[in-house]
Amino acid sequence: MSDQQSAVLALTKDLISRESVTPEDAGCQPLMSERLEALGFVTETMVFEDTTNMWVRKGDADPVFCFAGHTDVVPSGPVDAWHTPPFEPTEIDGYLHGRGAADMKGSLAAMVVATERFIAKHPDHKGSIAFLITSDEEGPFINGTTRVVDTLEARNEKMTWALVGEPSSTHKVGDVIKNGRRGSLSGDLFVKGVQGHVAYPHLAKNPIHLASPAIAELSQIQWDQGNDFFPPTSFQVSNINGGTGATNVVPGDVHIQFNFRYSTEVTAEELIKRVEGILDAHGLEYDLDWTYNGLPFLTAAGDLVEAAVKAIEDTVHYTPQLLTTGGTSDGRFLAPTGAQVLELGPCNATIHKINECVSISDLEHLTDMYEKILENLLAK
Amino acid sequence: MSDQQSAVLALTKDLISRESVTPEDAGCQPLMSERLEALGFVTETMVFEDTTNMWVRKGDADPVFCFAGHTDVVPSGPVDAWHTPPFEPTEIDGYLHGRGAADMKGSLAAMVVATERFIAKHPDHKGSIAFLITSDEEGPFINGTTRVVDTLEARNEKMTWALVGEPSSTHKVGDVIKNGRRGSLSGDLFVKGVQGHVAYPHLAKNPIHLASPAIAELSQIQWDQGNDFFPPTSFQVSNINGGTGATNVVPGDVHIQFNFRYSTEVTAEELIKRVEGILDAHGLEYDLDWTYNGLPFLTAAGDLVEAAVKAIEDTVHYTPQLLTTGGTSDGRFLAPTGAQVLELGPCNATIHKINECVSISDLEHLTDMYEKILENLLAK
Ligand SMILES: [Zn+2]
Ligand SMILES: [Zn+2]
Repeated sequence: MSDQQSAVLALTKDLISRESVTPEDAGCQPLMSERLEALGFVTETMVFEDTTNMWVRKGDADPVFCFAGHTDVVPSGPVDAWHTPPFEPTEIDGYLHGRGAADMKGSLAAMVVATERFIAKHPDHKGSIAFLITSDEEGPFINGTTRVVDTLEARNEKMTWALVGEPSSTHKVGDVIKNGRRGSLSGDLFVKGVQGHVAYPHLAKNPIHLASPAIAELSQIQWDQGNDFFPPTSFQVSNINGGTGATNVVPGDVHIQFNFRYSTEVTAEELIKRVEGILDAHGLEYDLDWTYNGLPFLTAAGDLVEAAVKAIEDTVHYTPQLLTTGGTSDGRFLAPTGAQVLELGPCNATIHKINECVSISDLEHLTDMYEKILENLLAK
Repeated sequence: MSDQQSAVLALTKDLISRESVTPEDAGCQPLMSERLEALGFVTETMVFEDTTNMWVRKGDADPVFCFAGHTDVVPSGPVDAWHTPPFEPTEIDGYLHGRGAADMKGSLAAMVVATERFIAKHPDHKGSIAFLITSDEEGPFINGTTRVVDTLEARNEKMTWALVGEPSSTHKVGDVIKNGRRGSLSGDLFVKGVQGHVAYPHLAKNPIHLASPAIAELSQIQWDQGNDFFPPTSFQVSNINGGTGATNVVPGDVHIQFNFRYSTEVTAEELIKRVEGILDAHGLEYDLDWTYNGLPFLTAAGDLVEAAVKAIEDTVHYTPQLLTTGGTSDGRFLAPTGAQVLELGPCNATIHKINECVSISDLEHLTDMYEKILENLLAK
């Protein structure tokens, strides 16, 4: 066991030390594909614009089991705020620290090592194993998974099961499997005023003053109650910027970006109508562009759910919750192909934050879980 | 008359041709003090850091009449955009063009020439005449008038009346006297939240959501009704910035800069207490730094106002408006000593702009007004 544990830890470190801020891959995909090619996988690199993707497959038989994930990470934020340099993987008290440790370089390493172990034990397994890896999951996700899926669909190459390595867990690895995701809808809002000097307020119209009551109202609304599979719809402003920088000038407009994560209790169209109604009711003059980031999806049951639940129970002796909470993932692009889609990865408490880290023993358990899922689905 | 008119024009030209961009004096003060010393004035040069100031006084009796002004000018901006070189004073159609023509080298020349004429007629006048001149009014105003006033206060040297040469007029010289200014108080506010992912709102605390109701409340308050001399106190947010730039991240804080222009119906301390009370009532966690840019001051009535109004009426046969509108001036440093403070100077339409200019006949009227003010207050 100890050799295998070091294998996942070593590969995770190697991946973290490559500064692959979206859309950079920084050599992470070649590191993975080299290991997979040694097992008989064939790599198909798909570069779209600034984004590097790869589709790596072993076998051409059905069913197709696909590990899906991303090599890119969000920016580190202020480096000085980190206890350890974000791109120097560092072990502290059983945790591996570094940007991407939990989201999702640990999962990528676990996928590769689990596959190595599974193929060593089951060289003549059923079906095919594939990896769909992108470097554009944290960014605009235009040239990533969605375009790889389009390419596969165009040649009628299907996957039966997709296991996404997103950090699904809450307190310990495998306590939560994500079997669906909320929809995501973004708004890009410019509220207009009239620029002027602070000493002559009657000649200006302050867009920050005008927008504030509307933001206050939007942030206090309960949009719905959620349902058995989905938590309530949530609204969050991510960015607000207004002002010339000078402290004596009233700016001409304020730019506000916000996002909905929404349940199946509401539609994107209903949300848009309600937001615009509130902006209008506040008498605002504005420009507002909407982006549909993804529809809600759900894998309620099936052999992938069974295989994953059993793998977790056999590894850590507890039963996972099936939840649809959390962010969008590339699962939204995989589900529409008809594949069963689950997400299983480490704890997500530190992702996208200063001092992101992952439990080293969780990484080792995750490797075992991935291997057992392969066994449950593809062992003869 | 024509000799005296040329005197103010000649001295204004001489001052404009010295390129005294803040904090440079470029020999302007020596030019003035040489003329005043010939009349029996004594010059005390006060250099503080990069700033040259002078206190020039004739007589040691009370009451003390003080001309206050600045030799520094704002930068010319792009020289090519000027019709004439900014530091080569040029007459065009009755206007003198050049940087500082209106703000305020014309006023300085008028002060010197008016004093020469007054002393020639009234060699045994009452009280004292003084000049408080700085080269740091357009800049950070740290080492200018405020430090000269501190020096005078420390030795208990008082002025009774201060006439600031700032360009107070709107359409023709003397149509407006500024008899006060609003206070200016700035706040630099960071509202704190907890950074996180928009999809995990329960793990984040959105500072934009938290701050919005407080901004809405602050921007809707009527702080006071103003009074006969001041418009109502006004609150304006000049800048708001929050967000990492990523559209899926809830930022850790939001930075808000705001400014009060306040009347004498309220004090800075009351405004601070009220703002902090509102932030506290909204349960905000925040850092807030305050900057006192200037206290409000007002010279509602008195012998200086009477002398100035009469001087204007006798010179141009109209009655000035007394206003407190507009930005801050060095009057804010003079008023706290107990002096009566007025601002009277040429039209301000072109100040700080390309092609700054002053009406030559206004300069001559201004010289007459200044001389008559001296007569009204100090002639025996
Ligand atoms: Zn991720
Ligand atoms: Zn000025």
